[in-house]
Amino acid sequence: MADWKLEGLLLTRMADIRYICGFSGSSATVLLLRRRGYFLTDSRYREQSAEEVKGLEVLIYREGPGEGLRKILDANGKIGLGFDPEAVSYAEVLSLRGQLKGKARLVPFKGSLASLRARKDAGELEKIRRCIEIAEQSFREVVAGLGSDTTEMELAFELDMEARKRGADDRAFDTIVASGPRGALVHAQPSTRKLRGATVVDWGVNHGGYNSDTSRTLALGRTPTVLRKAHQIVLEAQERALERIKPGARAGEVDAAARETVERAGFGLNFGHGLGHGVGLEVHERPHVSGGSHETLEEGMVFTVEPGIYIPGEGGVRVEDMVLVKKQGPELLTTLPRGMDPSDY
Amino acid sequence: MADWKLEGLLLTRMADIRYICGFSGSSATVLLLRRRGYFLTDSRYREQSAEEVKGLEVLIYREGPGEGLRKILDANGKIGLGFDPEAVSYAEVLSLRGQLKGKARLVPFKGSLASLRARKDAGELEKIRRCIEIAEQSFREVVAGLGSDTTEMELAFELDMEARKRGADDRAFDTIVASGPRGALVHAQPSTRKLRGATVVDWGVNHGGYNSDTSRTLALGRTPTVLRKAHQIVLEAQERALERIKPGARAGEVDAAARETVERAGFGLNFGHGLGHGVGLEVHERPHVSGGSHETLEEGMVFTVEPGIYIPGEGGVRVEDMVLVKKQGPELLTTLPRGMDPSDY
Repeated sequence: MADWKLEGLLLTRMADIRYICGFSGSSATVLLLRRRGYFLTDSRYREQSAEEVKGLEVLIYREGPGEGLRKILDANGKIGLGFDPEAVSYAEVLSLRGQLKGKARLVPFKGSLASLRARKDAGELEKIRRCIEIAEQSFREVVAGLGSDTTEMELAFELDMEARKRGADDRAFDTIVASGPRGALVHAQPSTRKLRGATVVDWGVNHGGYNSDTSRTLALGRTPTVLRKAHQIVLEAQERALERIKPGARAGEVDAAARETVERAGFGLNFGHGLGHGVGLEVHERPHVSGGSHETLEEGMVFTVEPGIYIPGEGGVRVEDMVLVKKQGPELLTTLPRGMDPSDY
Repeated sequence: MADWKLEGLLLTRMADIRYICGFSGSSATVLLLRRRGYFLTDSRYREQSAEEVKGLEVLIYREGPGEGLRKILDANGKIGLGFDPEAVSYAEVLSLRGQLKGKARLVPFKGSLASLRARKDAGELEKIRRCIEIAEQSFREVVAGLGSDTTEMELAFELDMEARKRGADDRAFDTIVASGPRGALVHAQPSTRKLRGATVVDWGVNHGGYNSDTSRTLALGRTPTVLRKAHQIVLEAQERALERIKPGARAGEVDAAARETVERAGFGLNFGHGLGHGVGLEVHERPHVSGGSHETLEEGMVFTVEPGIYIPGEGGVRVEDMVLVKKQGPELLTTLPRGMDPSDY
C-alpha cells in the first residue's frame, strides 16, 4: 500500500476475500487498513461469517457496503483506498464514491492481490493436488465405462457424478465434451451427440475453494488422420513449452515455444487461444501464459499448459496439464497419461 | 432509446444477450443501433455464434469488444450509447471510453432490458414450467429415498443427479440444504451433518437457459415446537401475500402483506430478507418483491414468494413458491404440497 500511497485496500473479488480471511460465501466486502481489517456483509451471512472469518473484524450492514464503510471511515479522515476495477461494477463504484464522499478517495488498483495469490503455499498446493487427484480418478473411471452409445452430455454428467462421489464440492467450470466436428468449438457445451472420432474433454474439480483444470482428447472409433497428426503436434508443443518453464522465464516466451511448434507444422492459424492460465481459488487467474504476456514466472506459480488445434468442420484436439513452477523447473501436477486411446487410461 | 436520447444500446449482461439473440455462450457484447444490431465475440465462439445468433450481424474481434465497436461506429459519428452500469466492470467502462473516444458517449442506463425480460411470453413460460416440473419430480424422488443417515451434502447431490437424469442442464444455483440449527443460516452450504429436525431445502433447475427456484422445509425426527409454529406462520404469510398479487399491485405491498403476518406473530426480526424476486434467464431478476420496492406488478411476471423465519441457535423455516401474474390474479407455478412431513410428498 505504501508504494501506491494508499492508506487502505478495498477487496470485492470473492476469491481475494477467501484468500485473506477464509470466508466462502458469495457476497462480502473487505477493507484492509494499515493496522486493522474489516469484513463487511449482510445479515444472510451473519452466522457463516462468525464461523469462517479469521483475523478481521466482522460488521453486518443493512443497506449495503457503502453504509458499513461510512461507519468505519468516520474517524479516519480522507484517505486513499485502492480497489480492483475489474472486480466491481461501474454502478457500484459510482455508488461507493457517492457514499464515501469526503471520507475516502477510491483509486483503481488492478489485481491488488493477484501477484500474491499467483504463488501458492504448501497448504494451497495440497488442496490443488487433491482436486487433481479427484479429477483424474473420475476420468479413469468414466473412460473405463464408455459405451458405443455414450453421448457428450452423459460423459460430462458421469464425470461430474464421479467427482462428487469422491468428495468434490463442485465442478470447477462447465465440463466441455466435444466430439467429432464439434471438437472445433473451443467452448462447446455438451450435446446429445454420441461420442465419435476425436473427442475433447476439458474438466475440473472444485474442492475446498481450489480448482483443477485438465483436458484430454480421445480417439473413439474412426478419427481423421489430420487430427491424429494434430494430436502429435500438440504433444510436442507442450514439451517445448515445459522446457522453458522456470523461475525468471517470461510467460510470453513459454507461449511462444509452443506456438512456434504448431506454426512450423502449418497449424498456426488453428491455435486460437493462449497457452495457459493460472489456477487456484479461481479457474482463471495470474499468471496469463499467452502471447505478449510480460509476466515473469515465479516459484510456486501453478498454471495450465494447453496447446490445441481446431479445424472447422473437421474437429479439434487439446491436451492440458497443470504445472507447478519449482526452483529447478516445472513439476507436472497432472499425472494422467496423454494418449488418444481410451485404453491408455 | 428515443426517450433517453440514445442512438444505441450496448448489452454486456449475458442473460440480456441470450434474450435478444439466443446466444448461450459466456462472453459477448451486443450493440443495438436503431436500424441494425451487431453481435461481437472472440474466435472461441466463432462456430457457436454462427449456429445460435439470430437477427444480428456477427463480428469476431481479436483484442476485445472495444476494437470491434470502433470498426462499426467509424461511420456513425459521435452517438449516445446506453450501457448497464451493473453489468460491466469499472475497468471495462474506462477501457471502452478510451477506445470509443470521439465515436460514442457511454451513458449509464440501469437494467435496460430488465422490464422487458420481467414479462414472460408463452415460450418462456413453457421453459420455466419444464424447469419446475423437473425440480419437483426430483424432489419427490429424493424425499422418498431419505434414510436416517442421509447428510445435507448427500441430499443436495441426489437432487442434482435426479434433475440431471431428467434432462436439466444444470442446477440453477448451489443447492441449500440446512438442517437443525444450521437452518438459521439463510445461505448455508450443505455440510456432512445428518438431516435432523427442521431441514430447509432450497433448490432450482436450469434448463434451456431458464431457471426454477423452490424451497421446502421438512421436519425430520424431533423438531422444535417453535419451528413447527414458525412454519404455520410462514404458510399464512405466503397466503396473505398471494392475495395481493395482481397486475397493478405494488411489489412492496405484497412484501408488506407477508411481513405483517410474521410481525404480528412476534417473529418480525427473524425474517431478514425480501419476500421474493423475479426468475427467468437469471435466478434473480426483476421484479424485486421486497420492502420499499416501488415496482408495479404486470401480467406475465414470474417471481418467488418465499417468507422465512430464522432463529439463531435453533433453526429456520422457509417455504418458496413461484407464481405467474395473470389478469385475474396469481397462478401458482409450483405444484408441490408444502407440508413439513416427508410423506406429504
